[in-house]
Amino acid sequence: MTGNRPFALTRRALSLSALGLAAAPLLARAQAQPADPLPSWRDGPRKQALRDFVGAVTREGGPDFVPPESRIATFDNDGTLWVEQPVYTQVLFIMDRMKALAAQHPDWTHDPVFRAAVAGDLRGVAAGGVHGIMRLAGAAQAGNTPEEFGSVAADWLATARDSRWQRPYTQLVYQPMLEVLAFLKASGFTCFIVTGGGVEFVRAFSQATYGIPPWRVVGSTFALKPGERDGRVVLTREPSVDFVDDGPGKPVGIARQIGQRPIAAFGNSDGDFQMLQYATEGSGKRLGMIVHHDDAEREYAYDRESQIGHLARAMDEAPRRGWQLISMKQDWARIFP
Amino acid sequence: MTGNRPFALTRRALSLSALGLAAAPLLARAQAQPADPLPSWRDGPRKQALRDFVGAVTREGGPDFVPPESRIATFDNDGTLWVEQPVYTQVLFIMDRMKALAAQHPDWTHDPVFRAAVAGDLRGVAAGGVHGIMRLAGAAQAGNTPEEFGSVAADWLATARDSRWQRPYTQLVYQPMLEVLAFLKASGFTCFIVTGGGVEFVRAFSQATYGIPPWRVVGSTFALKPGERDGRVVLTREPSVDFVDDGPGKPVGIARQIGQRPIAAFGNSDGDFQMLQYATEGSGKRLGMIVHHDDAEREYAYDRESQIGHLARAMDEAPRRGWQLISMKQDWARIFP
Repeated sequence: MTGNRPFALTRRALSLSALGLAAAPLLARAQAQPADPLPSWRDGPRKQALRDFVGAVTREGGPDFVPPESRIATFDNDGTLWVEQPVYTQVLFIMDRMKALAAQHPDWTHDPVFRAAVAGDLRGVAAGGVHGIMRLAGAAQAGNTPEEFGSVAADWLATARDSRWQRPYTQLVYQPMLEVLAFLKASGFTCFIVTGGGVEFVRAFSQATYGIPPWRVVGSTFALKPGERDGRVVLTREPSVDFVDDGPGKPVGIARQIGQRPIAAFGNSDGDFQMLQYATEGSGKRLGMIVHHDDAEREYAYDRESQIGHLARAMDEAPRRGWQLISMKQDWARIFP
Repeated sequence: MTGNRPFALTRRALSLSALGLAAAPLLARAQAQPADPLPSWRDGPRKQALRDFVGAVTREGGPDFVPPESRIATFDNDGTLWVEQPVYTQVLFIMDRMKALAAQHPDWTHDPVFRAAVAGDLRGVAAGGVHGIMRLAGAAQAGNTPEEFGSVAADWLATARDSRWQRPYTQLVYQPMLEVLAFLKASGFTCFIVTGGGVEFVRAFSQATYGIPPWRVVGSTFALKPGERDGRVVLTREPSVDFVDDGPGKPVGIARQIGQRPIAAFGNSDGDFQMLQYATEGSGKRLGMIVHHDDAEREYAYDRESQIGHLARAMDEAPRRGWQLISMKQDWARIFP
């Protein structure tokens, strides 16, 4: 699909030239004209909705025009920008950390979720739900500074491989969503990640993987304790999660860190419900999109029965709320870069 | 000073032309060459320190080069970017709000700080210190959404006038600091405000006044309670300050929201001490600058004796920490735009 539009424009320019009209400016415009900004999206209502929305809010003088400083879009990460099955990538990171630290923490054997993590038992970890995962997160990742943690996470991401594809996790990002990020950026949007995951974990790869700098990642946080060591400022990550950026927490995280209501939001689970609501309940033209994982062959198929990426209410209410359900199977010509 | 450099380059270009060398490219470069980026700064060690620092970290291949994504600079607001005397501008806003709301809150008369606020007694309010101000902030500004509060603050800022200069507060910003913001931006920096003030109050004017979008303002926050009203997401600002972005809180606010240690920091009081420390204790070339209010004639003169903008420890330790003390009187050719 990529090459079609420039070719068509070139033909049009040539035919105008045959009519005696100046072809040069039209040719120049045809060459400058970007190719299809969403080449991995199959033609259909979802691709159209994306293009229509961006067209409407960027059309100066149009009824739906939004100035660039208000073009805020928010993206969930797990299951929306990268793979979240069979369990959140950060949980795999935490399990690797817990294995390494287990000998120093004999008390961990008394806790079923902790025991599952150390044993590498994904089902046991998933059974603990988001709350269990948050407890694991605190236990496995505390006691260091944000900078120290950032390099531990980056080191792990550089070497760890997914068991199904044998690829680094940062390559298991959705090519169609990378194209949405690039399309929105090119259209004057500022894009943010709003993740239930730990903010510092996602910041460890957001710039290199998505082109999103750390301050445009909103996420769950550990209590940070300020102090001094050898007369220097030291921030210590305490073993307690003090903000859960999930469900009703997402609009709170957005309001606190971004300070502005998004005009577009992208999610894939009921944990994104309130973010989608918050974005699309604002006045003017809005866009809410949900990635529906219905492609077991190329990725995974799951929704209402899944613990990870549970999707029921958001899917059920999508039609009346005007949210677009993206079918991974139908709408995406390719999944990974 | 502004016009000197382009003129000099033009003369050089003309003399080269007289020597038979092609003048056109040099002329084009001279026209593109920016004028002095800091015209309101008098020549001297502070202006030089600013230019040297920016030159060093932007020189590709040089020993102090910092890639653009790590060029983070943080600025305190009250007393660093705009006037904070005789009392923080947000306190004047709060006092006006409290006057308006007092009739509905007879209990306020029992609290000396609240009574002072309603009576318009600045000294009484200042005597309550930062803690008293935070309590006032909660009482006067709670119960609404961030969006509602933002427009209340913007409306007030549009009409309120400072009693000494009879100007809107957003015009009582320091022209030399606006030039630093612009100079850093043009040099590939991303600048943030890190304020002890309420984040939503500063966001109400940061874009228009400083060109800083809301997500690049870090500040003190109220607890935000998520809920629903008529089936729509509603965030309610609770009457309690849940994060004080001052003193040791500033590095915490920076780590949480920016996610990166700044390489330059600008402050004016001991409330900025830990931010200056955090920025300048990082490895590589760093810049810490303190605005010293020593100009009673053109603005105010205060430091260790002042409740507002108290400056003692940061000034005393500045020499050994390599922080530059900016003399408003000596270093700034003009104060306001």
